[in-house]
Amino acid sequence: MRLRVKNLDLDAGNKYVVVLNEEEAREHRIYPLDRVRVKYGKKEITAIVDYATRSVKRGEIGLFSDCWEALGVKDGYVEVEAAEKPSSVKYIRDKLMGEELEPQEIMEIIKDVVAANLSDIEVAYFVAACLLRGMSVEETVSMVKAMVETGERLNLGKRPILDKHCIGGVPGNRTTMLLVPILASLGFYIPKTSSRAITSPSGTADTMEVLARVDFSVPEIREIVLRTRGAIVWGGGTGLAAADDKMIEVRHTLSLDPEGMLLASILAKKVAVGATHVIIDIPVGQTAKVQSIDRYLHLKRAFELVAGRLNLKLKVVQSDGSEPIGNGLGPVLEARDVLLALEGRGPRDLTEKSIWLASELLELAGFKGAERRVREAIKSGMALRKMREIIEAQEGDPDIRPEDLNPGKYSWDYVADRPGRVSFIHNRHISAIAFAAGAPQDKGAGIYLRKHVGDRVEKGEVIFTVYSNNKKRLKHAVEKIDPYTVVVR
Amino acid sequence: MRLRVKNLDLDAGNKYVVVLNEEEAREHRIYPLDRVRVKYGKKEITAIVDYATRSVKRGEIGLFSDCWEALGVKDGYVEVEAAEKPSSVKYIRDKLMGEELEPQEIMEIIKDVVAANLSDIEVAYFVAACLLRGMSVEETVSMVKAMVETGERLNLGKRPILDKHCIGGVPGNRTTMLLVPILASLGFYIPKTSSRAITSPSGTADTMEVLARVDFSVPEIREIVLRTRGAIVWGGGTGLAAADDKMIEVRHTLSLDPEGMLLASILAKKVAVGATHVIIDIPVGQTAKVQSIDRYLHLKRAFELVAGRLNLKLKVVQSDGSEPIGNGLGPVLEARDVLLALEGRGPRDLTEKSIWLASELLELAGFKGAERRVREAIKSGMALRKMREIIEAQEGDPDIRPEDLNPGKYSWDYVADRPGRVSFIHNRHISAIAFAAGAPQDKGAGIYLRKHVGDRVEKGEVIFTVYSNNKKRLKHAVEKIDPYTVVVR
Repeated sequence: MRLRVKNLDLDAGNKYVVVLNEEEAREHRIYPLDRVRVKYGKKEITAIVDYATRSVKRGEIGLFSDCWEALGVKDGYVEVEAAEKPSSVKYIRDKLMGEELEPQEIMEIIKDVVAANLSDIEVAYFVAACLLRGMSVEETVSMVKAMVETGERLNLGKRPILDKHCIGGVPGNRTTMLLVPILASLGFYIPKTSSRAITSPSGTADTMEVLARVDFSVPEIREIVLRTRGAIVWGGGTGLAAADDKMIEVRHTLSLDPEGMLLASILAKKVAVGATHVIIDIPVGQTAKVQSIDRYLHLKRAFELVAGRLNLKLKVVQSDGSEPIGNGLGPVLEARDVLLALEGRGPRDLTEKSIWLASELLELAGFKGAERRVREAIKSGMALRKMREIIEAQEGDPDIRPEDLNPGKYSWDYVADRPGRVSFIHNRHISAIAFAAGAPQDKGAGIYLRKHVGDRVEKGEVIFTVYSNNKKRLKHAVEKIDPYTVVVR
Repeated sequence: MRLRVKNLDLDAGNKYVVVLNEEEAREHRIYPLDRVRVKYGKKEITAIVDYATRSVKRGEIGLFSDCWEALGVKDGYVEVEAAEKPSSVKYIRDKLMGEELEPQEIMEIIKDVVAANLSDIEVAYFVAACLLRGMSVEETVSMVKAMVETGERLNLGKRPILDKHCIGGVPGNRTTMLLVPILASLGFYIPKTSSRAITSPSGTADTMEVLARVDFSVPEIREIVLRTRGAIVWGGGTGLAAADDKMIEVRHTLSLDPEGMLLASILAKKVAVGATHVIIDIPVGQTAKVQSIDRYLHLKRAFELVAGRLNLKLKVVQSDGSEPIGNGLGPVLEARDVLLALEGRGPRDLTEKSIWLASELLELAGFKGAERRVREAIKSGMALRKMREIIEAQEGDPDIRPEDLNPGKYSWDYVADRPGRVSFIHNRHISAIAFAAGAPQDKGAGIYLRKHVGDRVEKGEVIFTVYSNNKKRLKHAVEKIDPYTVVVR
């Protein structure tokens, strides 16, 4: 049918969506979420259909911005006809029905996710299918490959290339920001992409952003790494494993983490940067993401199986997930801890964990006497100098000192109401409080832990301080503290 | 935050959706599919968030039509703040994770479906969860009750009230259009709501529409039924079990039919019209929807269990689903068969099946000698007169005769290429051909079957005729015929 275009002047999130008049579309048996081919001159797109009853009249077609631009239409008429759904929709249905998908079927789905040929509903069904039907090792491997192939790639032309990932769930824990300068200072390539926090007080990218820029394109990252051997950048905006970013939104709605997708998402980002040796840190603890040793062992095995199929040297290690790592929680507070640690005067737990992970990763890459070299890198100041180089390469101030990093101007002390020993710190509570105080958007917001599990406290002694640049937020954060946030016995 | 309103002049399908500037929303930690409370003077709505990067600038909020109207906003500013997701989102997640839901949890979900408080993604997760986790009898009963309570209800103040449902998948098969006038002519109330076809050549509502109007409000249906005791109307536009209509679109995308939802959808529509006695016809056949006796027995048991909990007298019967019922397939052709059958000269299979179902339903309601009375209703012309009354009450022409009903002006005969017996007719092929010819939108399009399974044919004899009002469509339909459409041996 011939329809007069109407520019809706609205983004559909990189999807081709057109709006048809409901009555008219029904007469042509075109239903919501069906596909239509829209032709304008020699240009043609396939778009997903939405209905309108009033805003788009008979004889009209509403175009979202992406369609409008793709067709290069000004005014006038387009030719519209029903199109088949992409075959990926059938594969998603097959997966829902319990079939194991072939590599090329997963490739089709991931391609269509990246090309935005699938509606959010269809992606949601795919997520649900992967969650409830599970994903085989074969399927996970296919998904990694598909994500890598359909996204950007970082090609450094070097080896080995080291990388790490932490499953998360533990506040603070900014080991990446020590690991990268340590290993780069020892001459290893480590192009680390990290995430931003969504519901936690800070991701590595948020913390690094206190010191430098973190949003770079892949060619820019390449330049930084070829110059300094290391980088600490935000992975989300790079287009590396782009399919993952597109599926995250749909997963986020219900906080769904299908195991196969989680594995694929992590490993695709590693393969996309050309990593050859990867260490996966899984903190295990009552209030961490992974709460039992069984779950840890299961994940470890799954990682190893998939990595083995990808020719990736990978080691999974279990770490202590029982309490936050480091003292500062929130971008500025964490960045200060990191600089202090590189100067040899940072929180002991953060420093020691970073040394351990760096050593494990070096040993995985076949280097002997790793721990000694790693300790030397910090002691000698090499790692700190490397960090300053990286900060400079990422357009930050290389001369920044810990003293320059000041937390939020409002603060509140949580004091012990009796003497004893700190026996428990609730990771998720602590995160929620720092988040409520404004982190990570308010870079200075967060928590400074003055005591860790096992430490003695006197009555009236400060256990932690909450910071914020917003009085109301601080108050709101403080109200979230309850007797189970920190337990003193 | 205070934002300047921008009318997007676009329907979001009865959902409150607002569009925020991506950068600005991220700074406020408001993500796509999150909820925000939007206040304008004393009016307030909770809406689902979408992002725009260009069309909605910082400081602006794009409002879809429903929000625009609900707030009664003209121009100026609204106050926007993050709101919690409705608790139904948590229940949907619980169901996905394998939990059985409590009645009030299902009620919350269904309420939010009807109030359009859930995004399509969230509804898709619910559909997937019900499909893959299954639904207990308890959950199905809760869903029926929730759908009934959140929708319109027909209260006739009479009993018994009879009703029927057919699981479908067999072309033709317009027994409802005989059953209703037969039973109404015998003095029983039977307010029948039916569906329109989506991908099949005709639903009962499409066929009845040839003879009368079918889209009525519940008060109008009430008036019709109180006057004539029967009605044959479209159930979709009435608001009876409205939640079902809202979920159908999301299910339709991947043609998903979670069993519990299917049962709930059917039974909710019965309970909503006050039905006391219901017969469920399940055609079983190789190319019907239900293809095995095991599946039939399973469904029968499920229907009985749920109906038992709803105090609904319900009987499930198995019928022959091996080939189309009646000769005409497509709105006009079916309507003609129905009128002929009421005159006692219609297709024998359609007539006999309708008599059987009507008798079973009457017996279920406790009436003896049912079959004799049903046959008498047709023979005496009572049923035909009742049909004319109903047609008149539904604003059609009560004097319409079968001869007035002419199929599409273009036709094509499918002839036997050898003598033999018709041994097989493929329901889905036949449907697809009639659909391709233009049914149900083209009322005259469809197929007229001149032979049924078991009939003898000579070489060159016509087995069926395809009709359409559109030459191109007719050609396209004919091309779909293959050697497995009708098998002669």
